[in-house]
Amino acid sequence: MAKKRVLSGMRPTGPLHLGHLHGVLQNWLQLQKEYECFYFVADWHALTTEYENPRRIPKNTRELLLEWLSVGLSPEKATLFVQSAIKEHAELYLLFGMIVPVPWLERNPTYKEMLQNLKNKDLTTYGFLGYPVLQAADILIYKAEKVPVGVDQLPHLELTREIARRFNYLYEREVFPLPEPILSQEAAKVPGLDGRKMSKSYGNAIFLNDSEAEVQKKILYMVTDTERPRKSDPGDPENRCVAFNLIKLYTPQERIQEIIEDCKAARLGCKDCKRELAERVVEALRPIWDKRVELEKQKDLFEEIVSEGNRRAREVAQTTLEEAKEILWGISYF
Amino acid sequence: MAKKRVLSGMRPTGPLHLGHLHGVLQNWLQLQKEYECFYFVADWHALTTEYENPRRIPKNTRELLLEWLSVGLSPEKATLFVQSAIKEHAELYLLFGMIVPVPWLERNPTYKEMLQNLKNKDLTTYGFLGYPVLQAADILIYKAEKVPVGVDQLPHLELTREIARRFNYLYEREVFPLPEPILSQEAAKVPGLDGRKMSKSYGNAIFLNDSEAEVQKKILYMVTDTERPRKSDPGDPENRCVAFNLIKLYTPQERIQEIIEDCKAARLGCKDCKRELAERVVEALRPIWDKRVELEKQKDLFEEIVSEGNRRAREVAQTTLEEAKEILWGISYF
Repeated sequence: MAKKRVLSGMRPTGPLHLGHLHGVLQNWLQLQKEYECFYFVADWHALTTEYENPRRIPKNTRELLLEWLSVGLSPEKATLFVQSAIKEHAELYLLFGMIVPVPWLERNPTYKEMLQNLKNKDLTTYGFLGYPVLQAADILIYKAEKVPVGVDQLPHLELTREIARRFNYLYEREVFPLPEPILSQEAAKVPGLDGRKMSKSYGNAIFLNDSEAEVQKKILYMVTDTERPRKSDPGDPENRCVAFNLIKLYTPQERIQEIIEDCKAARLGCKDCKRELAERVVEALRPIWDKRVELEKQKDLFEEIVSEGNRRAREVAQTTLEEAKEILWGISYF
Repeated sequence: MAKKRVLSGMRPTGPLHLGHLHGVLQNWLQLQKEYECFYFVADWHALTTEYENPRRIPKNTRELLLEWLSVGLSPEKATLFVQSAIKEHAELYLLFGMIVPVPWLERNPTYKEMLQNLKNKDLTTYGFLGYPVLQAADILIYKAEKVPVGVDQLPHLELTREIARRFNYLYEREVFPLPEPILSQEAAKVPGLDGRKMSKSYGNAIFLNDSEAEVQKKILYMVTDTERPRKSDPGDPENRCVAFNLIKLYTPQERIQEIIEDCKAARLGCKDCKRELAERVVEALRPIWDKRVELEKQKDLFEEIVSEGNRRAREVAQTTLEEAKEILWGISYF
């Protein structure tokens, strides 16, 4: 039986950190084993919020692709491509726009929320309002059957399903499948250096392209148990230590137990404990760094991988678009 | 000095009538002598109102191109093309959408008017709201400097100028010229068979593809002076005769004077008068019919003309789009 098709994308708005690695990329690595995956850099989507300063987007796009390959996304197993390189998304977006009622878009819960939250940007644009229309085109042009999403993005996917349903209904053919969510685990939320969710804008992130020295320094400066000023005081890692959240992510189960015991018994000092954590994080990141160094030596290979991904995506996108247009117009037309 | 560039388009929503001939096409025929003209069939724009029943559009598109050529638009003098064949319009529409505030679109006077007037259609779609964004892409992708418009369309053209201005401002380069209107003459409004403005929806039109017999019949059935039941009653053509409006359009000046005098003196009967008018209209349409018959014999030539027009349009559109993207992203990118 043919593998089901998965589509997912990321906006090229800045460097990746451990939050992306655990929250998204490790999920993608699993999915590429089981499904036919299409992963894309959503550079047009980045424009919806970055239109006043778009010139970082091309650099971020290359960076994102490099990181994806560095963490182990494989051009043999998945199709990695750039949204704006596939013009067909724009044409399907235009066609879908004709059948999408504006109230569907205004009703979209994330729309009003983002208008509220990003007050420093003028997001009252036509493109931002139409974000879900472009997203529907991104997904449906590959006839993706599965889309990995967080719970908060479920309304967006439901809108994609509505658009597919409306197209199929109006033009009386089952052109587009209704894509289903693969819900990502909430457990994947990675704590940042200050205990809040890891995020570039909080300044609490360990980036995948940080150097070994930077990672060491960031971890050694982490706050631990503030009620344990001296090593000789007993700690309470599970309830009071910020670093412990990261320790749990990077330490084998039996060693976690020892750490808890040694901390509570005042046998293990915070400095040593964080040194150990830093070592573990560095060891986890080292294969990514090594892969990256290797890729940076092979510029041509990188370009080739992206071209080939774009080519494969374009082929599928063109086929779907031709089919959709033939059904819409009733004949094969220009 | 290079000729200035003109862009104009028509929606393929049905057969052309004398209103189009005098109101638009004779203007286009003049313009193709003085300017570098790009004339396009706006089939995507037709979708904004016809999306529930789009299957007539491809046929109407071919019909429109045939009529254009029949009335004397020349593929040597002008570039005749089909909007949906030039994918670049869709991409520029997407990019413009990112920088166009929704209030600019909601404020558009024709937008609310059409929502009101076309109550039998659901026009609350994203595509209909974005009509002026697509129109701006249509015009600016050819860097058109002149656009023939009626007074009622001036706000649309102003919106195109606003979008050009905003793009140039945000990305700090004069990529797009601000197109100027060529105001079409109000005098060109053609009266229909019942005296109201000629319009397909009023059922009062003489179509360019009517047969000679149909034209004769439509004119002979026209209402004349209702207060002149008999030929022996004196008429008042200038104030009471519906047919007289068409007579003025199709009759030489000195003969019009004679008709007025003969009608007032009860020397000329309405039936004879309408026969004369029918003859004049038929003679005016005959070269168009002849050209059309000739074109229909040469299917290959017709296909070739359209392909060549599309090719020429695409070349210009691609060049502008590449330039706009390079300025937007800051580099040449995918």
